[in-house]
Amino acid sequence: MPGTLLAVHVHAHVKPDAIDAFIAATRTNAAASLNEAGVVRFDVLQEVEDPTRFVLVEVYRNPAAAAAHKQTSHYVTWRDAVTAMMAEPRDSVKHVTIFPEDDDY
Amino acid sequence: MPGTLLAVHVHAHVKPDAIDAFIAATRTNAAASLNEAGVVRFDVLQEVEDPTRFVLVEVYRNPAAAAAHKQTSHYVTWRDAVTAMMAEPRDSVKHVTIFPEDDDY
Repeated sequence: MPGTLLAVHVHAHVKPDAIDAFIAATRTNAAASLNEAGVVRFDVLQEVEDPTRFVLVEVYRNPAAAAAHKQTSHYVTWRDAVTAMMAEPRDSVKHVTIFPEDDDY
Repeated sequence: MPGTLLAVHVHAHVKPDAIDAFIAATRTNAAASLNEAGVVRFDVLQEVEDPTRFVLVEVYRNPAAAAAHKQTSHYVTWRDAVTAMMAEPRDSVKHVTIFPEDDDY
């Protein structure tokens, strides 16, 4: 059986001169997000082949937790801060968790 | 500073009639992979919008651990088992880990 968590991958393509600022803003947002009760993981990855491309690997307890995240002040601050850094609109893909079991996340 | 881990996202698009078999084979491979010393994470995700699309979220201690994974019998068994299940070739993207710190993975 699949798990009940919701895994969201946000793909961000940033302008080359905004890489450092994006990393700083996104680290701050990720650290604050981990303090949310409904956030299980909030990893930030940077592509090896193209350092202007990032993936935010977000795992939420449920869809309500994902919605609650977007109401937090740290999310709103991050969203507004990175708007001008984007090379193209962000892409967000939702997933169900097949492995491991919920308790092992 | 970025971390020293290597995060690999493998995107797999499977034939519709192979979804269940792919999940079974991939769960077995993921569970065995977690027993490798160099494997930190091995999550399996299925897209909500298109259940024929999966992401394997693999985190390795270093590039040598990723190479060692491909030498294991469970990887070879999985690779051969899923060959006929693929709707298109798999795509693999390597990342450096920006957040959290290595010790928090």
